Amino acid sequence: MLNMPHPARATIVDVARAAGVSRQTVSNAINSPERVSPDTLSRVLQVVEELNYRPSSAARTLRHQRAGAVGTELNAVTGTPSEVALPFLTALTLAAPGHACHMVPFASREAFPMLSGYQDMVRRRLVDAFVLTDTHPADPRPDWLEQAGIPYASFGRIYDDSSRVWWADVDGSAGTSAAVAHLAETGFRTVGFLGWPAGSAVGDDRRLGWLAGVEQHGLALGPEAAAPQSLSQAISAAERLLDGLAVGDAVVCASDVLALGVQQAALARGWRPGRDIGITGFDGSATAQLHDISTLVQPLDEIAEHLLTVVHDQLAGAPAPTQGALFLPTLTVGASTVTTSMKGTP
Amino acid sequence: MLNMPHPARATIVDVARAAGVSRQTVSNAINSPERVSPDTLSRVLQVVEELNYRPSSAARTLRHQRAGAVGTELNAVTGTPSEVALPFLTALTLAAPGHACHMVPFASREAFPMLSGYQDMVRRRLVDAFVLTDTHPADPRPDWLEQAGIPYASFGRIYDDSSRVWWADVDGSAGTSAAVAHLAETGFRTVGFLGWPAGSAVGDDRRLGWLAGVEQHGLALGPEAAAPQSLSQAISAAERLLDGLAVGDAVVCASDVLALGVQQAALARGWRPGRDIGITGFDGSATAQLHDISTLVQPLDEIAEHLLTVVHDQLAGAPAPTQGALFLPTLTVGASTVTTSMKGTP
Repeated sequence: MLNMPHPARATIVDVARAAGVSRQTVSNAINSPERVSPDTLSRVLQVVEELNYRPSSAARTLRHQRAGAVGTELNAVTGTPSEVALPFLTALTLAAPGHACHMVPFASREAFPMLSGYQDMVRRRLVDAFVLTDTHPADPRPDWLEQAGIPYASFGRIYDDSSRVWWADVDGSAGTSAAVAHLAETGFRTVGFLGWPAGSAVGDDRRLGWLAGVEQHGLALGPEAAAPQSLSQAISAAERLLDGLAVGDAVVCASDVLALGVQQAALARGWRPGRDIGITGFDGSATAQLHDISTLVQPLDEIAEHLLTVVHDQLAGAPAPTQGALFLPTLTVGASTVTTSMKGTP
Repeated sequence: MLNMPHPARATIVDVARAAGVSRQTVSNAINSPERVSPDTLSRVLQVVEELNYRPSSAARTLRHQRAGAVGTELNAVTGTPSEVALPFLTALTLAAPGHACHMVPFASREAFPMLSGYQDMVRRRLVDAFVLTDTHPADPRPDWLEQAGIPYASFGRIYDDSSRVWWADVDGSAGTSAAVAHLAETGFRTVGFLGWPAGSAVGDDRRLGWLAGVEQHGLALGPEAAAPQSLSQAISAAERLLDGLAVGDAVVCASDVLALGVQQAALARGWRPGRDIGITGFDGSATAQLHDISTLVQPLDEIAEHLLTVVHDQLAGAPAPTQGALFLPTLTVGASTVTTSMKGTP
């Protein structure tokens, strides 16, 4: 018996691409045909038929019988929200019309137990489902949402129960491995690591990619150090780390703030980032952009698209995915890894 | 005939304060009394009567006969959104339930003419009104919204027509004057300025506050320079500026990124921020927090509250405000202006 891969179901993206129109136009053709010109409407509906695209159960249910909205929490508790929070909300907001829904943010100043805001949104019938962010071990939200029968999908793994697969996340170790590969290509031969203190699932994953990359590319393993997500502490840790490195070496970092710490510590000892020391960050944040640091950019558009699809499938009663989805980050090169031809090749 | 000031109408904030409950509880007492305990309900309704609070026209209309939502655009065009964008959206989201509404963000990748996203939200009946951000001269949105009869309020002045008063903004010159006052108190005697290139209404306003503050506090006027909102250009401009200053002087900046440029240029010449050179930024951004720079924090909660009130009044057909609302920023002191007792007082 052949174990053929199940043919992928056509998505709204496939239809939009084949018809040469935007996702919004596909959605309009299905939900508000009066808003689409007759020519376009006929072309889109033909592609819908050819690809056997079936949006009705999920999208129409969401649009016509429910709130038609997906809630997402904005962190109003800590003073320093994730640097990815706004770009991710923007990606969700851009993706939502293609899923015949809109996003409704909510926020609370209460730190714990965090569930009241979710309960309130459901009671007010403002949303049908949630996209979670900032998942963490002992997160009470997945349990509560499942018990309440409320669909959700999360940006970030669900740590306590591997049978829960309604998530998408960034492949951190693949990312730091790619950073090492880039440093090897650029001519750096010894690569150290600045991470977060051990025990952070995300940080530990990013550390593994550094080790694997150094091994794979036959580079020398540099020293490692750790600091929390604070610039002053990152600078202190980087100073110690740089004491064990030399001009021409490089440091892979678990975040852009840590990479900024290495950049500042290097500048303080007169090492020019990119020439005297290679530095890579992680997250593609505004901080990396501002300081011209090479960084691993999270594919937020793809992740948002995946999560809204997962939410729709749940609302439509479609079968659960068999596993969470890992997405590869892509390296954006800044001045922190741009070397001149001064380096010899080995 | 006496020209008495019109007594201020009680707001939901007044009721919440007098009853000792949250705004959300006041809103619940009026819109969903079944969700409030009998004791609390009776107390809130008594205060509502005492203060003659009349939420029904605006809040109920918004809640029961309309979408009950206010739209706000997320900038998906430029790669670097305003650092205030997420904190401001969070402030609106926190304030919304107190106005019996929720926020619905929308975004578009089209740079111009920008109106299609607004039109689309109205057509889909997702929102009743908008909160605008990033207003600028020749902004097409106020004209279009007024012609379409759609209520709005804007964070930022409406530049082309001073008769349009549906706005709230930060008093930039009062902010930079306060920064100069703080520098004077801390012992700095000469204060320069790093701004944006002339012609930016916001930047020109912040420059005026520097001039006024230096005059008012009897300080010496230092040199000035300008750079766009780019770190590398800010550093270049700061280098020239610092050539005209000495250890013990200070620089007031029109933004946190510009202040970061001064900080980096100072460090590069071995001047310790806060001790050898005073530096203030503007906006209370994550960048200022990360780099421990003294900055003027915008009162986003008050501004959000004001704008949602203005939107409600329009929906309720209440009279127009007579003028826009200016809010004072408050200085948060970081390491960039903390001097030791080494400075003598004059």
